Amino acid sequence: MYAWFYGLIMAMQARPSYIINGDLSQTIKPLDRGLAYGDGVFRTMQTKGGMPVCWPLHYQKLVADCAAIGIVCPSADLLMHDFVQLLVEPDLESNKLGVAKIIITRGEGERGYKTPAVTCPSRILIQSTMPGYAPDTYTTGVDLHLCELRLAPQPKLAGIKHLNRLENIMARMEWRDDAAFDGLLLDQQDNAIECTMANLFARYGNQLLTPDLMQCGVSGITRERILSLASVLNLTVQITQMPLARLMQADEVLICNSLFGVFQVRSIQNTSWPQQALAKNFRTLLTHD
Amino acid sequence: MYAWFYGLIMAMQARPSYIINGDLSQTIKPLDRGLAYGDGVFRTMQTKGGMPVCWPLHYQKLVADCAAIGIVCPSADLLMHDFVQLLVEPDLESNKLGVAKIIITRGEGERGYKTPAVTCPSRILIQSTMPGYAPDTYTTGVDLHLCELRLAPQPKLAGIKHLNRLENIMARMEWRDDAAFDGLLLDQQDNAIECTMANLFARYGNQLLTPDLMQCGVSGITRERILSLASVLNLTVQITQMPLARLMQADEVLICNSLFGVFQVRSIQNTSWPQQALAKNFRTLLTHD
Repeated sequence: MYAWFYGLIMAMQARPSYIINGDLSQTIKPLDRGLAYGDGVFRTMQTKGGMPVCWPLHYQKLVADCAAIGIVCPSADLLMHDFVQLLVEPDLESNKLGVAKIIITRGEGERGYKTPAVTCPSRILIQSTMPGYAPDTYTTGVDLHLCELRLAPQPKLAGIKHLNRLENIMARMEWRDDAAFDGLLLDQQDNAIECTMANLFARYGNQLLTPDLMQCGVSGITRERILSLASVLNLTVQITQMPLARLMQADEVLICNSLFGVFQVRSIQNTSWPQQALAKNFRTLLTHD
Repeated sequence: MYAWFYGLIMAMQARPSYIINGDLSQTIKPLDRGLAYGDGVFRTMQTKGGMPVCWPLHYQKLVADCAAIGIVCPSADLLMHDFVQLLVEPDLESNKLGVAKIIITRGEGERGYKTPAVTCPSRILIQSTMPGYAPDTYTTGVDLHLCELRLAPQPKLAGIKHLNRLENIMARMEWRDDAAFDGLLLDQQDNAIECTMANLFARYGNQLLTPDLMQCGVSGITRERILSLASVLNLTVQITQMPLARLMQADEVLICNSLFGVFQVRSIQNTSWPQQALAKNFRTLLTHD
Protein backbone atom coordinates (compact mmCIF):
# COMPACT_ATOMS: atom_id res chain seq x y z
CA MET A 1 0.00 0.00 0.00
CA TYR A 2 2.84 2.40 0.80
CA ALA A 3 4.49 1.75 -2.55
CA TRP A 4 1.21 2.47 -4.31
CA PHE A 5 0.80 5.74 -2.38
CA TYR A 6 4.39 6.76 -3.14
CA GLY A 7 3.85 6.09 -6.83
CA LEU A 8 0.74 8.25 -6.82
CA ILE A 9 2.55 11.14 -5.13
CA MET A 10 5.40 10.91 -7.64
CA ALA A 11 2.98 10.93 -10.57
CA MET A 12 1.15 13.94 -9.15
CA GLN A 13 4.32 16.02 -8.91
CA ALA A 14 4.92 18.22 -11.93
CA ARG A 15 8.19 17.48 -13.64
CA PRO A 16 10.68 20.07 -12.36
CA SER A 17 11.57 22.68 -14.95
CA TYR A 18 14.99 23.24 -13.45
CA ILE A 19 18.04 21.30 -12.42
CA ILE A 20 20.76 22.47 -10.04
CA ASN A 21 24.27 21.02 -10.23
CA GLY A 22 22.94 18.07 -12.19
CA ASP A 23 20.51 17.13 -9.42
CA LEU A 24 16.74 17.49 -9.90
CA SER A 25 16.14 17.74 -6.15
CA GLN A 26 18.90 20.20 -5.25
CA THR A 27 18.13 23.75 -4.11
CA ILE A 28 19.99 27.06 -3.86
CA LYS A 29 21.73 27.69 -0.56
CA PRO A 30 21.33 31.12 1.05
CA LEU A 31 25.13 31.38 1.13
CA ASP A 32 25.39 31.00 -2.64
CA ARG A 33 27.29 34.05 -3.85
CA GLY A 34 24.94 34.30 -6.83
CA LEU A 35 22.20 35.29 -4.41
CA ALA A 36 24.40 37.20 -1.95
CA TYR A 37 26.16 39.44 -4.47
CA GLY A 38 24.95 38.62 -7.99
CA ASP A 39 28.33 36.91 -8.25
CA GLY A 40 27.81 34.98 -11.48
CA VAL A 41 26.74 35.07 -15.11
CA PHE A 42 23.85 33.76 -17.19
CA ARG A 43 22.63 33.07 -20.68
CA THR A 44 19.15 32.83 -22.17
CA MET A 45 18.75 30.76 -25.32
CA GLN A 46 16.19 29.17 -27.57
CA THR A 47 15.69 25.44 -27.37
CA LYS A 48 14.33 23.11 -30.05
CA GLY A 49 13.00 19.80 -28.80
CA GLY A 50 14.49 20.69 -25.41
CA MET A 51 18.05 21.11 -26.69
CA PRO A 52 19.81 24.49 -27.09
CA VAL A 53 20.02 26.29 -30.43
CA CYS A 54 23.44 27.80 -31.33
CA TRP A 55 24.98 25.96 -28.41
CA PRO A 56 28.66 26.38 -29.44
CA LEU A 57 28.33 30.18 -29.50
CA HIS A 58 26.38 30.25 -26.24
CA TYR A 59 28.84 28.00 -24.48
CA GLN A 60 31.81 30.00 -25.78
CA LYS A 61 30.25 33.22 -24.43
CA LEU A 62 29.42 31.53 -21.12
CA VAL A 63 33.05 30.45 -20.71
CA ALA A 64 34.30 33.94 -21.62
CA ASP A 65 31.89 35.69 -19.24
CA CYS A 66 32.79 33.32 -16.40
CA ALA A 67 36.50 33.90 -17.04
CA ALA A 68 35.99 37.67 -17.04
CA ILE A 69 34.93 37.53 -13.39
CA GLY A 70 37.29 34.72 -12.41
CA ILE A 71 34.94 31.72 -12.48
CA VAL A 72 35.94 28.47 -14.19
CA CYS A 73 32.88 27.50 -16.24
CA PRO A 74 31.59 23.93 -15.83
CA SER A 75 32.26 21.72 -18.84
CA ALA A 76 29.93 21.64 -21.85
CA ASP A 77 29.45 17.92 -21.17
CA LEU A 78 28.01 18.60 -17.73
CA LEU A 79 25.67 21.24 -19.10
CA MET A 80 24.57 18.98 -21.95
CA HIS A 81 23.82 16.28 -19.42
CA ASP A 82 21.61 18.77 -17.56
CA PHE A 83 19.66 19.44 -20.75
CA VAL A 84 19.20 15.71 -21.32
CA GLN A 85 17.94 15.21 -17.76
CA LEU A 86 15.26 17.86 -18.30
CA LEU A 87 14.23 16.44 -21.70
CA VAL A 88 10.53 15.77 -22.11
CA GLU A 89 9.81 13.09 -24.74
CA PRO A 90 6.88 14.86 -26.49
CA ASP A 91 8.85 18.13 -26.83
CA LEU A 92 11.79 16.24 -28.29
CA GLU A 93 9.64 14.47 -30.86
CA SER A 94 7.74 17.59 -31.90
CA ASN A 95 10.87 19.78 -32.07
CA LYS A 96 8.92 22.20 -29.89
CA LEU A 97 10.54 25.60 -29.28
CA GLY A 98 11.30 26.65 -25.73
CA VAL A 99 13.63 28.79 -23.64
CA ALA A 100 16.57 27.68 -21.55
CA LYS A 101 18.36 29.84 -19.05
CA ILE A 102 21.73 28.82 -17.64
CA ILE A 103 23.01 30.52 -14.49
CA ILE A 104 26.58 29.94 -13.31
CA THR A 105 27.47 31.40 -9.91
CA ARG A 106 30.76 31.37 -8.02
CA GLY A 107 29.12 28.89 -5.64
CA GLU A 108 28.83 28.96 -1.90
CA GLY A 109 31.08 31.06 0.27
CA GLU A 110 31.44 32.56 3.70
CA ARG A 111 30.00 36.03 4.31
CA GLY A 112 32.18 38.76 2.78
CA TYR A 113 33.29 39.87 -0.67
CA LYS A 114 36.58 37.96 -0.63
CA THR A 115 36.30 35.01 -2.99
CA PRO A 116 37.05 31.65 -1.38
CA ALA A 117 40.48 30.17 -2.19
CA VAL A 118 38.69 27.13 -3.59
CA THR A 119 35.28 27.58 -5.18
CA CYS A 120 32.87 25.13 -6.71
CA PRO A 121 30.61 27.01 -9.14
CA SER A 122 26.86 26.38 -8.98
CA ARG A 123 25.15 25.65 -12.30
CA ILE A 124 21.43 26.05 -12.78
CA LEU A 125 19.44 25.18 -15.89
CA ILE A 126 15.88 26.48 -16.07
CA GLN A 127 13.53 25.53 -18.92
CA SER A 128 10.48 27.63 -19.74
CA THR A 129 8.03 28.11 -22.58
CA MET A 130 8.77 30.24 -25.64
CA PRO A 131 7.16 33.69 -25.33
CA GLY A 132 4.61 34.58 -28.00
CA TYR A 133 5.17 37.72 -30.07
CA ALA A 134 2.38 39.78 -31.65
CA PRO A 135 2.17 39.17 -35.45
CA ASP A 136 2.91 42.81 -36.32
CA THR A 137 6.26 42.68 -34.53
CA TYR A 138 7.40 40.50 -37.45
CA THR A 139 6.06 42.89 -40.11
CA THR A 140 5.84 46.57 -39.11
CA GLY A 141 8.17 46.16 -36.13
CA VAL A 142 8.26 47.20 -32.49
CA ASP A 143 8.05 50.49 -30.58
CA LEU A 144 10.74 51.40 -28.05
CA HIS A 145 10.41 53.36 -24.84
CA LEU A 146 13.30 55.79 -24.35
CA CYS A 147 14.58 55.01 -20.84
CA GLU A 148 15.32 57.80 -18.43
CA LEU A 149 17.87 55.64 -16.57
CA ARG A 150 21.35 55.98 -18.05
CA LEU A 151 23.75 53.03 -18.00
CA ALA A 152 26.80 53.51 -15.80
CA PRO A 153 30.24 53.06 -17.40
CA GLN A 154 32.17 50.15 -15.90
CA PRO A 155 34.83 48.79 -18.28
CA LYS A 156 35.61 45.89 -15.89
CA LEU A 157 32.09 44.49 -16.33
CA ALA A 158 30.94 45.86 -19.71
CA GLY A 159 29.86 43.28 -22.27
CA ILE A 160 29.46 40.53 -19.66
CA LYS A 161 26.00 39.03 -19.10
CA HIS A 162 26.46 38.97 -15.33
CA LEU A 163 23.86 38.66 -12.59
CA ASN A 164 24.03 42.36 -11.56
CA ARG A 165 21.00 43.48 -13.52
CA LEU A 166 19.37 46.14 -11.34
CA GLU A 167 19.91 48.75 -14.04
CA ASN A 168 17.84 46.69 -16.48
CA ILE A 169 15.15 46.17 -13.84
CA MET A 170 14.97 49.84 -12.87
CA ALA A 171 14.80 50.74 -16.57
CA ARG A 172 12.10 48.11 -17.21
CA MET A 173 10.04 49.58 -14.35
CA GLU A 174 9.72 52.84 -16.28
CA TRP A 175 6.77 51.54 -18.32
CA ARG A 176 4.08 48.97 -17.56
CA ASP A 177 1.77 49.14 -20.58
CA ASP A 178 2.38 46.83 -23.52
CA ALA A 179 2.75 49.69 -26.01
CA ALA A 180 6.54 49.55 -25.85
CA PHE A 181 8.17 46.22 -26.68
CA ASP A 182 11.47 47.18 -25.03
CA GLY A 183 13.30 50.22 -23.68
CA LEU A 184 16.23 51.98 -25.36
CA LEU A 185 19.11 52.52 -22.95
CA LEU A 186 21.57 55.39 -23.33
CA ASP A 187 24.82 55.99 -21.52
CA GLN A 188 25.46 59.15 -19.51
CA GLN A 189 26.71 60.97 -22.64
CA ASP A 190 23.46 60.29 -24.56
CA ASN A 191 24.94 57.49 -26.65
CA ALA A 192 22.52 54.70 -27.56
CA ILE A 193 23.89 51.43 -26.15
CA GLU A 194 21.25 48.68 -26.23
CA CYS A 195 17.74 47.78 -25.10
CA THR A 196 16.94 46.22 -21.72
CA MET A 197 16.81 42.76 -23.34
CA ALA A 198 18.27 43.22 -26.82
CA ASN A 199 21.21 44.60 -28.78
CA LEU A 200 20.83 47.42 -31.26
CA PHE A 201 21.72 48.04 -34.92
CA ALA A 202 21.24 51.07 -37.18
CA ARG A 203 21.55 51.07 -40.99
CA TYR A 204 22.72 54.10 -42.95
CA GLY A 205 22.76 53.26 -46.68
CA ASN A 206 24.83 50.09 -46.94
CA GLN A 207 26.51 50.64 -43.57
CA LEU A 208 25.31 48.69 -40.55
CA LEU A 209 26.35 50.22 -37.23
CA THR A 210 26.09 48.83 -33.72
CA PRO A 211 27.08 50.58 -30.48
CA ASP A 212 30.48 50.05 -28.91
CA LEU A 213 30.08 48.12 -25.62
CA MET A 214 33.45 48.79 -24.00
CA GLN A 215 31.96 50.88 -21.17
CA CYS A 216 28.52 49.37 -20.64
CA GLY A 217 25.95 47.05 -22.18
CA VAL A 218 25.83 43.31 -22.81
CA SER A 219 27.40 41.84 -25.91
CA GLY A 220 25.00 39.15 -27.11
CA ILE A 221 25.65 36.31 -29.51
CA THR A 222 22.91 37.33 -31.96
CA ARG A 223 24.72 40.68 -32.28
CA GLU A 224 27.90 38.71 -33.09
CA ARG A 225 26.05 36.58 -35.64
CA ILE A 226 24.57 39.65 -37.35
CA LEU A 227 28.00 41.27 -37.53
CA SER A 228 29.25 38.09 -39.25
CA LEU A 229 26.29 37.73 -41.62
CA ALA A 230 25.98 41.38 -42.72
CA SER A 231 28.29 40.95 -45.71
CA VAL A 232 25.83 38.44 -47.20
CA LEU A 233 23.38 41.34 -47.48
CA ASN A 234 26.10 43.60 -48.95
CA LEU A 235 26.37 45.59 -45.75
CA THR A 236 29.61 46.79 -44.20
CA VAL A 237 29.62 46.78 -40.42
CA GLN A 238 31.03 49.20 -37.88
CA ILE A 239 31.15 49.09 -34.08
CA THR A 240 31.01 52.69 -32.99
CA GLN A 241 29.74 55.36 -30.64
CA MET A 242 26.12 56.06 -31.53
CA PRO A 243 24.72 59.35 -30.19
CA LEU A 244 20.93 59.23 -29.86
CA ALA A 245 20.56 62.08 -32.39
CA ARG A 246 22.51 60.02 -34.94
CA LEU A 247 20.45 56.88 -34.24
CA MET A 248 17.28 58.84 -34.92
CA GLN A 249 18.57 59.66 -38.43
CA ALA A 250 19.16 56.02 -39.38
CA ASP A 251 17.47 54.57 -42.47
CA GLU A 252 16.48 51.54 -40.45
CA VAL A 253 16.85 50.45 -36.81
CA LEU A 254 16.94 46.83 -35.63
CA ILE A 255 17.03 45.08 -32.28
CA CYS A 256 18.08 41.48 -31.72
CA ASN A 257 18.37 38.75 -29.12
CA SER A 258 18.59 34.97 -29.00
CA LEU A 259 14.85 34.44 -28.52
CA PHE A 260 13.13 36.56 -31.16
CA GLY A 261 16.09 36.88 -33.49
CA VAL A 262 15.68 40.29 -35.16
CA PHE A 263 12.87 42.85 -35.13
CA GLN A 264 12.70 46.17 -36.93
CA VAL A 265 12.14 49.21 -34.72
CA ARG A 266 8.95 51.00 -35.81
CA SER A 267 9.27 53.99 -33.52
CA ILE A 268 11.25 55.67 -30.75
CA GLN A 269 9.32 58.58 -29.23
CA ASN A 270 8.08 60.73 -32.14
CA THR A 271 10.40 59.27 -34.74
CA SER A 272 9.06 56.40 -36.80
CA TRP A 273 10.37 54.23 -39.60
CA PRO A 274 8.40 52.61 -42.45
CA GLN A 275 8.38 48.84 -42.78
CA GLN A 276 11.50 47.58 -44.57
CA ALA A 277 13.08 44.24 -45.38
CA LEU A 278 16.29 44.06 -43.35
CA ALA A 279 14.92 42.50 -40.15
CA LYS A 280 13.14 39.80 -42.15
CA ASN A 281 16.26 39.14 -44.25
CA PHE A 282 18.38 38.75 -41.12
CA ARG A 283 15.78 36.45 -39.55
CA THR A 284 15.97 34.24 -42.62
CA LEU A 285 19.78 34.25 -42.54
CA LEU A 286 19.88 33.46 -38.80
CA THR A 287 17.47 30.55 -39.23
CA HIS A 288 19.58 28.97 -41.96
CA ASP A 289 23.00 29.87 -40.55
CA MET B 1 11.83 2.59 17.98
CA TYR B 2 11.09 4.98 15.15
CA ALA B 3 10.59 7.85 17.59
CA TRP B 4 13.97 7.11 19.16
CA PHE B 5 15.65 7.03 15.74
CA TYR B 6 13.97 10.28 14.74
CA GLY B 7 15.14 11.94 17.94
CA LEU B 8 18.70 10.83 17.29
CA ILE B 9 18.66 12.22 13.75
CA MET B 10 17.27 15.55 14.94
CA ALA B 11 19.94 15.79 17.64
CA MET B 12 22.67 15.06 15.09
CA GLN B 13 21.57 17.82 12.73
CA ALA B 14 23.30 21.14 13.34
CA ARG B 15 20.85 23.90 14.13
CA PRO B 16 20.31 25.81 10.86
CA SER B 17 22.03 29.19 10.86
CA TYR B 18 19.49 30.68 8.49
CA ILE B 19 15.78 31.05 8.12
CA ILE B 20 13.91 31.82 4.91
CA ASN B 21 10.49 33.50 4.99
CA GLY B 22 10.11 32.50 8.62
CA ASP B 23 10.56 28.82 7.83
CA LEU B 24 13.64 26.91 8.99
CA SER B 25 13.24 24.30 6.25
CA GLN B 26 12.54 26.61 3.30
CA THR B 27 15.05 27.03 0.46
CA ILE B 28 15.73 29.58 -2.28
CA LYS B 29 13.94 28.93 -5.56
CA PRO B 30 15.99 29.23 -8.77
CA LEU B 31 13.37 31.71 -10.03
CA ASP B 32 13.94 34.06 -7.10
CA ARG B 33 14.83 37.42 -8.62
CA GLY B 34 17.50 37.91 -5.97
CA LEU B 35 19.46 35.12 -7.61
CA ALA B 36 18.42 35.86 -11.19
CA TYR B 37 19.24 39.58 -11.20
CA GLY B 38 20.54 40.61 -7.79
CA ASP B 39 17.08 42.14 -7.45
CA GLY B 40 17.10 42.92 -3.73
CA VAL B 41 18.92 44.56 -0.84
CA PHE B 42 20.74 43.41 2.28
CA ARG B 43 22.16 44.50 5.60
CA THR B 44 24.92 43.12 7.79
CA MET B 45 24.74 43.87 11.50
CA GLN B 46 26.20 42.91 14.85
CA THR B 47 24.14 40.76 17.17
CA LYS B 48 24.36 40.49 20.93
CA GLY B 49 22.89 37.36 22.44
CA GLY B 50 21.44 36.59 19.01
CA MET B 51 19.49 39.85 18.70
CA PRO B 52 20.46 42.76 16.42
CA VAL B 53 22.36 45.79 17.71
CA CYS B 54 21.09 49.20 16.49
CA TRP B 55 18.01 47.52 15.07
CA PRO B 56 15.88 50.68 14.58
CA LEU B 57 18.54 52.26 12.35
CA HIS B 58 19.12 49.03 10.44
CA TYR B 59 15.43 48.45 9.86
CA GLN B 60 14.90 52.07 8.78
CA LYS B 61 17.71 51.73 6.21
CA LEU B 62 16.35 48.35 5.05
CA VAL B 63 12.93 49.90 4.44
CA ALA B 64 14.47 52.87 2.61
CA ASP B 65 16.69 50.67 0.42
CA CYS B 66 13.76 48.38 -0.43
CA ALA B 67 11.62 51.38 -1.34
CA ALA B 68 14.37 52.80 -3.54
CA ILE B 69 14.07 49.79 -5.85
CA GLY B 70 10.31 49.36 -5.46
CA ILE B 71 10.15 46.55 -2.90
CA VAL B 72 7.81 46.74 0.11
CA CYS B 73 9.98 45.65 3.04
CA PRO B 74 8.52 42.94 5.32
CA SER B 75 7.47 44.22 8.72
CA ALA B 76 9.90 44.59 11.62
CA ASP B 77 7.72 42.14 13.57
CA LEU B 78 8.27 39.41 10.98
CA LEU B 79 12.02 40.00 11.00
CA MET B 80 12.15 40.04 14.80
CA HIS B 81 10.29 36.75 14.82
CA ASP B 82 12.96 35.34 12.49
CA PHE B 83 15.68 36.41 14.95
CA VAL B 84 13.80 34.76 17.81
CA GLN B 85 13.44 31.50 15.86
CA LEU B 86 17.22 31.37 15.33
CA LEU B 87 17.99 32.17 18.98
CA VAL B 88 20.36 29.78 20.71
CA GLU B 89 19.88 29.70 24.48
CA PRO B 90 23.60 29.76 25.47
CA ASP B 91 24.31 32.72 23.15
CA LEU B 92 21.40 34.63 24.61
CA GLU B 93 22.54 34.04 28.17
CA SER B 94 26.18 34.92 27.53
CA ASN B 95 25.32 38.02 25.43
CA LYS B 96 27.67 36.55 22.85
CA LEU B 97 28.49 38.77 19.85
CA GLY B 98 27.64 37.53 16.39
CA VAL B 99 26.76 38.68 12.88
CA ALA B 100 23.36 38.73 11.23
CA LYS B 101 22.74 39.30 7.56
CA ILE B 102 19.27 40.08 6.26
CA ILE B 103 18.58 39.72 2.55
CA ILE B 104 15.30 40.97 1.08
CA THR B 105 14.65 40.08 -2.56
CA ARG B 106 11.73 40.98 -4.83
CA GLY B 107 10.73 37.31 -4.58
CA GLU B 108 9.95 34.84 -7.31
CA GLY B 109 9.06 35.86 -10.82
CA GLU B 110 8.83 34.66 -14.37
CA ARG B 111 11.90 34.95 -16.58
CA GLY B 112 12.46 38.55 -17.75
CA TYR B 113 13.30 41.90 -16.20
CA LYS B 114 9.68 43.09 -15.93
CA THR B 115 8.68 43.03 -12.27
CA PRO B 116 5.56 40.96 -11.56
CA ALA B 117 2.36 42.97 -10.97
CA VAL B 118 2.11 41.29 -7.59
CA THR B 119 5.30 40.32 -5.77
CA CYS B 120 5.91 38.62 -2.48
CA PRO B 121 9.39 39.56 -1.24
CA SER B 122 11.67 36.81 0.05
CA ARG B 123 13.34 37.46 3.39
CA ILE B 124 16.43 35.60 4.50
CA LEU B 125 18.16 35.87 7.86
CA ILE B 126 21.62 34.34 8.15
CA GLN B 127 23.49 34.17 11.46
CA SER B 128 27.24 33.72 11.60
CA THR B 129 30.09 34.17 14.03
CA MET B 130 31.73 37.51 14.74
CA PRO B 131 35.01 37.88 12.82
CA GLY B 132 38.13 38.33 14.90
CA TYR B 133 40.28 41.41 14.33
CA ALA B 134 44.03 41.58 14.97
CA PRO B 135 44.83 43.53 18.19
CA ASP B 136 46.84 46.21 16.37
CA THR B 137 43.82 47.15 14.22
CA TYR B 138 42.44 48.70 17.42
CA THR B 139 45.62 50.59 18.23
CA THR B 140 47.85 51.54 15.29
CA GLY B 141 45.08 50.97 12.72
CA VAL B 142 44.70 49.24 9.36
CA ASP B 143 46.39 49.44 5.97
CA LEU B 144 44.35 49.98 2.82
CA HIS B 145 44.97 48.66 -0.66
CA LEU B 146 44.28 51.33 -3.31
CA CYS B 147 41.91 49.59 -5.74
CA GLU B 148 42.48 49.84 -9.46
CA LEU B 149 38.77 49.31 -10.16
CA ARG B 150 36.85 52.58 -10.23
CA LEU B 151 33.23 52.71 -9.08
CA ALA B 152 30.74 53.48 -11.83
CA PRO B 153 28.39 56.46 -11.31
CA GLN B 154 24.73 55.41 -11.10
CA PRO B 155 22.57 57.94 -9.24
CA LYS B 156 19.53 55.61 -9.39
CA LEU B 157 21.34 53.02 -7.25
CA ALA B 158 23.94 55.04 -5.32
CA GLY B 159 23.78 54.76 -1.54
CA ILE B 160 21.64 51.60 -1.63
CA LYS B 161 23.04 48.38 -0.18
CA HIS B 162 21.64 46.29 -3.03
CA LEU B 163 22.60 42.81 -4.15
CA ASN B 164 24.54 43.97 -7.25
CA ARG B 165 27.99 43.79 -5.71
CA LEU B 166 30.26 42.62 -8.52
CA GLU B 167 32.24 45.86 -8.31
CA ASN B 168 33.08 45.11 -4.67
CA ILE B 169 34.00 41.53 -5.56
CA MET B 170 36.21 42.50 -8.50
CA ALA B 171 37.90 45.11 -6.29
CA ARG B 172 38.36 42.56 -3.46
CA MET B 173 40.01 40.18 -5.93
CA GLU B 174 42.84 42.69 -6.45
CA TRP B 175 44.70 41.51 -3.33
CA ARG B 176 44.84 38.14 -1.57
CA ASP B 177 47.41 38.63 1.16
CA ASP B 178 46.30 39.78 4.60
CA ALA B 179 48.52 42.88 4.57
CA ALA B 180 45.63 45.11 3.50
CA PHE B 181 42.56 45.12 5.73
CA ASP B 182 40.34 46.62 3.04
CA GLY B 183 40.57 48.34 -0.34
CA LEU B 184 40.01 52.04 -1.00
CA LEU B 185 37.62 52.62 -3.88
CA LEU B 186 37.75 55.73 -6.05
CA ASP B 187 35.27 56.92 -8.64
CA GLN B 188 36.27 57.55 -12.24
CA GLN B 189 37.37 61.13 -11.41
CA ASP B 190 39.80 59.96 -8.70
CA ASN B 191 37.53 60.91 -5.82
CA ALA B 192 37.76 58.66 -2.77
CA ILE B 193 34.31 57.13 -2.13
CA GLU B 194 34.50 54.25 0.36
CA CYS B 195 36.18 50.90 1.01
CA THR B 196 34.86 47.58 -0.27
CA MET B 197 33.19 46.90 3.10
CA ALA B 198 33.38 50.22 4.97
CA ASN B 199 32.65 53.93 4.75
CA LEU B 200 35.38 56.54 4.93
CA PHE B 201 36.10 59.67 7.00
CA ALA B 202 38.98 62.15 6.91
CA ARG B 203 39.78 64.71 9.62
CA TYR B 204 41.39 68.08 8.85
CA GLY B 205 41.83 70.03 12.10
CA ASN B 206 38.39 70.04 13.71
CA GLN B 207 36.60 69.27 10.44
CA LEU B 208 35.44 65.73 9.77
CA LEU B 209 34.75 65.02 6.08
CA THR B 210 33.10 62.03 4.44
CA PRO B 211 32.62 61.47 0.70
CA ASP B 212 29.40 62.39 -1.04
CA LEU B 213 27.59 59.20 -2.14
CA MET B 214 25.11 60.62 -4.67
CA GLN B 215 26.78 58.88 -7.64
CA CYS B 216 28.18 55.68 -6.15
CA GLY B 217 28.98 53.96 -2.89
CA VAL B 218 26.88 52.54 -0.08
CA SER B 219 25.64 54.79 2.70
CA GLY B 220 25.99 52.77 5.90
CA ILE B 221 24.36 53.36 9.25
CA THR B 222 27.67 53.64 11.17
CA ARG B 223 28.54 56.52 8.82
CA GLU B 224 25.21 58.13 9.81
CA ARG B 225 25.90 57.56 13.49
CA ILE B 226 29.38 59.10 13.24
CA LEU B 227 27.97 62.13 11.44
CA SER B 228 25.51 62.53 14.35
CA LEU B 229 28.08 61.97 17.10
CA ALA B 230 30.89 64.14 15.74
CA SER B 231 29.76 67.26 17.57
CA VAL B 232 30.35 65.47 20.89
CA LEU B 233 34.05 65.43 19.94
CA ASN B 234 33.91 69.11 18.89
CA LEU B 235 34.11 68.21 15.23
CA THR B 236 32.08 69.85 12.47
CA VAL B 237 31.04 67.49 9.68
CA GLN B 238 30.87 67.91 5.94
CA ILE B 239 29.69 65.57 3.18
CA THR B 240 31.78 66.47 0.18
CA GLN B 241 33.75 65.42 -2.86
CA MET B 242 37.06 64.02 -1.68
CA PRO B 243 39.81 63.82 -4.32
CA LEU B 244 42.40 61.16 -3.48
CA ALA B 245 45.14 63.81 -3.28
CA ARG B 246 43.10 65.67 -0.65
CA LEU B 247 42.43 62.49 1.34
CA MET B 248 46.16 61.82 1.49
CA GLN B 249 46.68 65.20 3.20
CA ALA B 250 44.21 64.47 6.01
CA ASP B 251 45.36 64.68 9.63
CA GLU B 252 43.62 61.39 10.30
CA VAL B 253 41.68 58.86 8.20
CA LEU B 254 39.01 56.51 9.56
CA ILE B 255 36.92 53.68 8.17
CA CYS B 256 33.73 52.33 9.71
CA ASN B 257 31.09 49.65 9.41
CA SER B 258 28.51 47.96 11.62
CA LEU B 259 30.76 45.06 12.59
CA PHE B 260 34.05 46.58 13.69
CA GLY B 261 32.74 50.06 14.40
CA VAL B 262 35.65 52.42 13.62
CA PHE B 263 39.31 51.81 12.78
CA GLN B 264 42.02 54.34 12.09
CA VAL B 265 43.76 54.01 8.72
CA ARG B 266 47.47 53.49 9.28
CA SER B 267 48.53 53.65 5.63
CA ILE B 268 47.42 53.95 2.01
CA GLN B 269 50.23 53.12 -0.39
CA ASN B 270 53.29 55.14 0.73
CA THR B 271 51.38 57.56 2.93
CA SER B 272 51.09 56.67 6.58
CA TRP B 273 49.52 58.23 9.63
CA PRO B 274 50.71 58.02 13.28
CA GLN B 275 48.42 56.50 15.88
CA GLN B 276 45.82 58.98 17.14
CA ALA B 277 42.79 58.95 19.40
CA LEU B 278 39.80 59.64 17.15
CA ALA B 279 38.96 56.07 16.14
CA LYS B 280 39.06 54.95 19.76
CA ASN B 281 36.95 57.90 20.86
CA PHE B 282 34.32 57.14 18.25
CA ARG B 283 34.34 53.45 19.22
CA THR B 284 33.63 54.46 22.80
CA LEU B 285 30.84 56.80 21.73
CA LEU B 286 29.28 54.18 19.44
CA THR B 287 29.30 51.59 22.20
CA HIS B 288 27.50 53.89 24.63
CA ASP B 289 25.21 55.57 22.13
